[in-house]
Amino acid sequence: MTSDNPKRHYGDESPILAFATVPGNSALTLIRCSGKGSIELVSSVFSADLKNAQGNTIIHGWISNNRNGKAEKIDEVLVSVFRAPKSYTGEDGADICCHGGASAGKAVMDVLKNAGFYEALPGEYTFRAFMNGKIDLTKSESVMEIVSAKTETGRRHAIMRLSGSLQNEINEIKNILVQVLAGAEIYLDYSDDEVSADDDEAAGKLPNINMAVDALKRLKKLSASWQIERVYQEGITLVIAGRPNAGKSSLFNALLKEDRSIVTEIPGTTRDWIEAWVNIEGIPVRLIDTAGLRDCEDSVEKIGIDRSLKLLDEAELVLYLLDGALEEITSEDKIFIDKQITDKRYIFIWNKADRCQSPPNNKEIPGMSLICVSAKTGDGINELYTAITSAISRQTSLQSGETFAAAVGTERQKNLADAASRALEEALTLAEKEEPLDLIAPLLRDAINLLGEITGEVSTADILEEMFSRFCVGK
Amino acid sequence: MTSDNPKRHYGDESPILAFATVPGNSALTLIRCSGKGSIELVSSVFSADLKNAQGNTIIHGWISNNRNGKAEKIDEVLVSVFRAPKSYTGEDGADICCHGGASAGKAVMDVLKNAGFYEALPGEYTFRAFMNGKIDLTKSESVMEIVSAKTETGRRHAIMRLSGSLQNEINEIKNILVQVLAGAEIYLDYSDDEVSADDDEAAGKLPNINMAVDALKRLKKLSASWQIERVYQEGITLVIAGRPNAGKSSLFNALLKEDRSIVTEIPGTTRDWIEAWVNIEGIPVRLIDTAGLRDCEDSVEKIGIDRSLKLLDEAELVLYLLDGALEEITSEDKIFIDKQITDKRYIFIWNKADRCQSPPNNKEIPGMSLICVSAKTGDGINELYTAITSAISRQTSLQSGETFAAAVGTERQKNLADAASRALEEALTLAEKEEPLDLIAPLLRDAINLLGEITGEVSTADILEEMFSRFCVGK
Repeated sequence: MTSDNPKRHYGDESPILAFATVPGNSALTLIRCSGKGSIELVSSVFSADLKNAQGNTIIHGWISNNRNGKAEKIDEVLVSVFRAPKSYTGEDGADICCHGGASAGKAVMDVLKNAGFYEALPGEYTFRAFMNGKIDLTKSESVMEIVSAKTETGRRHAIMRLSGSLQNEINEIKNILVQVLAGAEIYLDYSDDEVSADDDEAAGKLPNINMAVDALKRLKKLSASWQIERVYQEGITLVIAGRPNAGKSSLFNALLKEDRSIVTEIPGTTRDWIEAWVNIEGIPVRLIDTAGLRDCEDSVEKIGIDRSLKLLDEAELVLYLLDGALEEITSEDKIFIDKQITDKRYIFIWNKADRCQSPPNNKEIPGMSLICVSAKTGDGINELYTAITSAISRQTSLQSGETFAAAVGTERQKNLADAASRALEEALTLAEKEEPLDLIAPLLRDAINLLGEITGEVSTADILEEMFSRFCVGK
Repeated sequence: MTSDNPKRHYGDESPILAFATVPGNSALTLIRCSGKGSIELVSSVFSADLKNAQGNTIIHGWISNNRNGKAEKIDEVLVSVFRAPKSYTGEDGADICCHGGASAGKAVMDVLKNAGFYEALPGEYTFRAFMNGKIDLTKSESVMEIVSAKTETGRRHAIMRLSGSLQNEINEIKNILVQVLAGAEIYLDYSDDEVSADDDEAAGKLPNINMAVDALKRLKKLSASWQIERVYQEGITLVIAGRPNAGKSSLFNALLKEDRSIVTEIPGTTRDWIEAWVNIEGIPVRLIDTAGLRDCEDSVEKIGIDRSLKLLDEAELVLYLLDGALEEITSEDKIFIDKQITDKRYIFIWNKADRCQSPPNNKEIPGMSLICVSAKTGDGINELYTAITSAISRQTSLQSGETFAAAVGTERQKNLADAASRALEEALTLAEKEEPLDLIAPLLRDAINLLGEITGEVSTADILEEMFSRFCVGK
């Protein structure tokens, strides 16, 4: 059915199309068309002539098919016409707004493919937008960040990058380094021609060294921002553990029930544990109730237990529940707590606080601090949130309320910022030792190029293709 | 969070909004705004002034929020502006195309709600389109049919109604009846004034009786179309049954594997059976592999078995598998087949044809016809499809290739067409008996009104509200 195009590559101007929305039980489905001749191709299957349609206008009509030589109406649609360069991709394009559901979008898509459109490669629209100078790489990447943002905070950070916060910061740092390099290069030219080789002072002194030091500070701040951005993007894993009947499932549900919305759900695959994403202070938290742990003691389901222990090992945080109804800590719990007491990832909880007077004397296990909670009544849940938030801060060096004017949003950006830092640091070390400028200048040039790679000013086809192919189709 | 509007009713002009696409892992999300002042409200949170924007134009900009007195950018969007009456609803409106994902659409939605938009009621856009005379009820209903169409054939039939096929047919029939009624009424007026009561011939003869007979034929054809349309819309249930190891799961998979795409999937709830929708000759078929039936004999899981038997009872078709590898029919199978042999819903299959010479002599169970299939090699699967298709035709009186120029698409339409038929039939019976025209005319008027209800010319607020509230939100 789909006579597709394994031969196509990023970088051609072919007319491409993709679903820009998820086809499903919704009122509408949006199909995005872009590329050379795309408006004419849509026009060829549309009831109105689009050839003279102005850019940024919307035209109502029917998509039709030629079936046995007879035009068959496929769907009633709105076509939004875009004229280069005023479009997302910078090319001519048309967005087709057809009816929702499983069939209508597919039927329209089939007609358009027959008319000559190719299925877009992943990220191809944004790739074209980048190639046509509509957006730099930091903005391109922020588009994907927005789509996959799990919390409002994550989205807000990505929006800052889409507005140009990172691009501006990188360009400012780069401009400083370009000035520093220019100063050094003038000196180099001069010293080559007119200064004798033993004129050490002139040859060895990097002009504007303070500017370079300032640039390095700003670069390091950018790199440091990744540790926090990564948490907002990828989230952390929080495992609820404890002996059977400690009330793990109730606590899991109590944490879900709070006014912290679940932003995504895991597709229904067979698992030994239950998980859900919750939003705690803007951080996406993957909450896991390790069902398998329940049978830890009777060691029947060896595989399940092993998996649960692996989850505990990998978790960024563990809530370990003690059954408050027992009124004292069981010997098995004591053994477990003794082993984990120094593990900063663990938060120990005295659950079922509604059914007992008070938690046991803390002296029983020196160094253990207990949070009293009743998953049933909700008492102590707020204190638990505070403990979770401060444990996350500890883990991520995220200071409460801390914000960055500019922050990196992808590992690629972070790695390039790090590499630029290293080159700049090396240049500064040499400058402090008053080494010859012709050793320092290439390092400055490296740093500038690495910053150019972040925004895409400097790039290779391979890197771009690798990067955009990780985008979703339709973006 | 959502300060919603339990007090709102269909029929006001409030500015409303809803997601028109499914927010998810996609490039874009579409939010549809409509109603009095809606363009101004969007403009109040948008970076460009929309107040003077022309209808059917697209404007690029940012949706912003007022956060602590400071404008915060929420998302970069395209706003499509529509001016009454040139819009889906016939009102002023704006479609906001924001980034995809879980967060962006929600954030934009929140800003718009704070600006003064209300969440739309189910079907409220289409309700407004109907109230503003943009579409009649048959087209309104076809919009929902398109969205929920499970196969391409179902979609195509709904598109015919969206193009007006049913509306035109109803109006033509209605016009005929109006003419017949007019002829009768002129006579009535005349007879009242000028003809004496015993002028039987004049009073009793319905003029244009042949036209009324023709109208009745067309109405009956419309009603009859529902039996088939219903099958295309709702599909039929086909249960695969048989003893353990007869190869039910393999056949299930073989039927899925064919180039008949699965159009929808059942959400992952706990079930005793596996099911999937397949498309057989344009008919959505809900294919069920009743896992519970496997343990029918050992009666351990009583509940599971009961549920399976219930599924068999309710199925429109049953594929009963016999294990060909056994080379003869087991006694249990014989007992089962004896009971079901006269049940036209059953198709008996000799499976694993690749592992045996030939099916057993048909004389073993008189009247049973067996289809030889190998779910493993695919042999006989095409014959099975033919058998399934002809069994469906038998069930639904659907003739292969039969099409209707006009067909009803909902039970509401069918019931009204039936009621109109009955009124017309009664009128014709009286006319044949040459009963007085003043008995016949009211029946004709009833039929005309009932037809008007189909298109919505005649309607009440209650009926409309009940009808549109069954639509999805955003439509």
